[in-house]
Amino acid sequence: MYVVIMAGGSGTRFWPVSRKAKPKQFLDITGKGPMVLETCGRMAPAFKDEQIILVLGQEHMEEATALFRERRVHILAEPVGRNTAPCMGLGAIYASHLGCSDPVAFLPADHYVSKPAALLESVRRATEIAASGPIVTLGIVPTRPETGYGYIQWSEERPDFWEQKAYRVKAFVEKPTLDKAKQYLVRGDYLWNAGIFVATPQTILKEIELHLPRLYRGLTRLKPALGTDSFENVLEEVYEKLESVSFDYGIMERTSSPVFVVPCDCGWSDVGSWESLYELREEDHDDKRNLTEGECLVVDCKGTFVSSRGGRLVSCLGLKNCLVIDTPEALLVADLKKSQEVRKIIDLLKRSRKDDLL
Amino acid sequence: MYVVIMAGGSGTRFWPVSRKAKPKQFLDITGKGPMVLETCGRMAPAFKDEQIILVLGQEHMEEATALFRERRVHILAEPVGRNTAPCMGLGAIYASHLGCSDPVAFLPADHYVSKPAALLESVRRATEIAASGPIVTLGIVPTRPETGYGYIQWSEERPDFWEQKAYRVKAFVEKPTLDKAKQYLVRGDYLWNAGIFVATPQTILKEIELHLPRLYRGLTRLKPALGTDSFENVLEEVYEKLESVSFDYGIMERTSSPVFVVPCDCGWSDVGSWESLYELREEDHDDKRNLTEGECLVVDCKGTFVSSRGGRLVSCLGLKNCLVIDTPEALLVADLKKSQEVRKIIDLLKRSRKDDLL
Repeated sequence: MYVVIMAGGSGTRFWPVSRKAKPKQFLDITGKGPMVLETCGRMAPAFKDEQIILVLGQEHMEEATALFRERRVHILAEPVGRNTAPCMGLGAIYASHLGCSDPVAFLPADHYVSKPAALLESVRRATEIAASGPIVTLGIVPTRPETGYGYIQWSEERPDFWEQKAYRVKAFVEKPTLDKAKQYLVRGDYLWNAGIFVATPQTILKEIELHLPRLYRGLTRLKPALGTDSFENVLEEVYEKLESVSFDYGIMERTSSPVFVVPCDCGWSDVGSWESLYELREEDHDDKRNLTEGECLVVDCKGTFVSSRGGRLVSCLGLKNCLVIDTPEALLVADLKKSQEVRKIIDLLKRSRKDDLL
Repeated sequence: MYVVIMAGGSGTRFWPVSRKAKPKQFLDITGKGPMVLETCGRMAPAFKDEQIILVLGQEHMEEATALFRERRVHILAEPVGRNTAPCMGLGAIYASHLGCSDPVAFLPADHYVSKPAALLESVRRATEIAASGPIVTLGIVPTRPETGYGYIQWSEERPDFWEQKAYRVKAFVEKPTLDKAKQYLVRGDYLWNAGIFVATPQTILKEIELHLPRLYRGLTRLKPALGTDSFENVLEEVYEKLESVSFDYGIMERTSSPVFVVPCDCGWSDVGSWESLYELREEDHDDKRNLTEGECLVVDCKGTFVSSRGGRLVSCLGLKNCLVIDTPEALLVADLKKSQEVRKIIDLLKRSRKDDLL
């Protein structure tokens, strides 16, 4: 059995801490070490290092090599980012090359899980189902009417895998409006889509062949080069020409094969913004709901998130629901409720050609 | 004629920009250069450099020497700060030593004036009155019910110096409540006390003799040492033992001699807080009432004052009425309306023994 940890991508939502050279998955965002290490650590009770396949961007290879020094984790570097479908295809042929015909779990490297045992248990059940052929996805039991996530609706029909507490997937649903999200929460047949999949390499590749033929041809070219000196060159040639497409959009929304979902209540968050990080670290809040990191002085503040990562004293006075993130090169001060709009700052930086700050 | 510019003191209200080593009067707070230079420049149409006597703290002597390099300004260094009465007494005996028996103008070094010609005209009129003996103070015509300033009430009796548009002072009044300040504004017989005085050295010393005999004895010891090699040593000995007292409290509130006030409408501000600086720089505000200095990105902000003095990009998102002051060693983020409470940060720094940041 293998797990593919998907660590590509260059998140901008944690700017100025996350940067091109050091995206979220390589950062210590939650205070427990780099997220990619945390994700691997979470899987450790069920997967040994040599069962972990890490797929990441070539530009982060050095960083990853340092993080996983003297560990037997498999590391694959994508020459360019092409979203999750190519990444999972690459993971599938690599697992297959390692002799795997059992189900493989595919997980994003930059998510937060407060109850890892629950996650492992859901993965275990998903694996049992996936062994007989289908793609199984994990669906997170919603705890609030979240409009920032996609949803998975399960079918009312009696599930085929009752013992594994799995349901047949009825639909993958885009991010809803708040009204709809409230309905979903009450109905109970909608789960959050966490982008976690379990399937055999054969199933993944078969679905790619059916719905993403161009990607399939690329993977077919790659396969014989695996384990040879020419692998890197072929990978570069192949990846360059691939279209960027997510597994959700490219496969899950198109497939006619039955897909199953295992509900999972593991305290999950995609940690998609400074605000969501602030919220999930509730236990670190002081009695005025302030969250502080590093050398900070916080006077008469409420609900404020202050992170001093620039080696300087950060002092805050009389703030309410503010975000203050200090780094050596740049400082962000924002309304915490608007932290997901940090994109606007990135866009301004691009326009003013301050690429060194991206 | 001489002017004494009082540049002692170590303001903390502009922390983290103002520091022990570099208080407000040596800073470019208003964007027009160090305030002490600005104050001297403002007097230039009426006073040559050799008519300027600058009194400052010994710890800022180096700074001042650099600022006034190759200028013929007289510089006196106080070994320790003892408030304005000793400072003015020192200025008075020094002016006297220079042969002056005409009125001397005493001005704080760290105030803002938007209409310097109006100030000079008021000083000129005050000088005419002071030449015949009394102490004359300048009273700023109030423009709002300010509770942060002391007031000067003038007497309704027909003034002795009608031609100079001066009034007899009835009382020096402490900082009022908002209600009282509103009454003062409507009544019209209250002016702001700006701490600006005009009087002959003889008058100043006579009043000190009457009301601050200990200071007078000190000045009497100092006088013969002026211009000799022993001056510094005597100054140190004398100052050490002086009590710290303001000219307002020590003399103006006690004197029985008639005192006169010349109303002055010169766009004055004591620039006592970041907020007051923000307000007096109204012409530099953008259309959302933001004020920015240095390398800043301001997105969806209103009424926010951002100063990047730390050589780093400061980016602000969705803020309202905030203050962001970035320096190389420390950062202050505050509710702009609470900027006068920066004292609380200073107190915390003292308690946690972070003296290097004071």
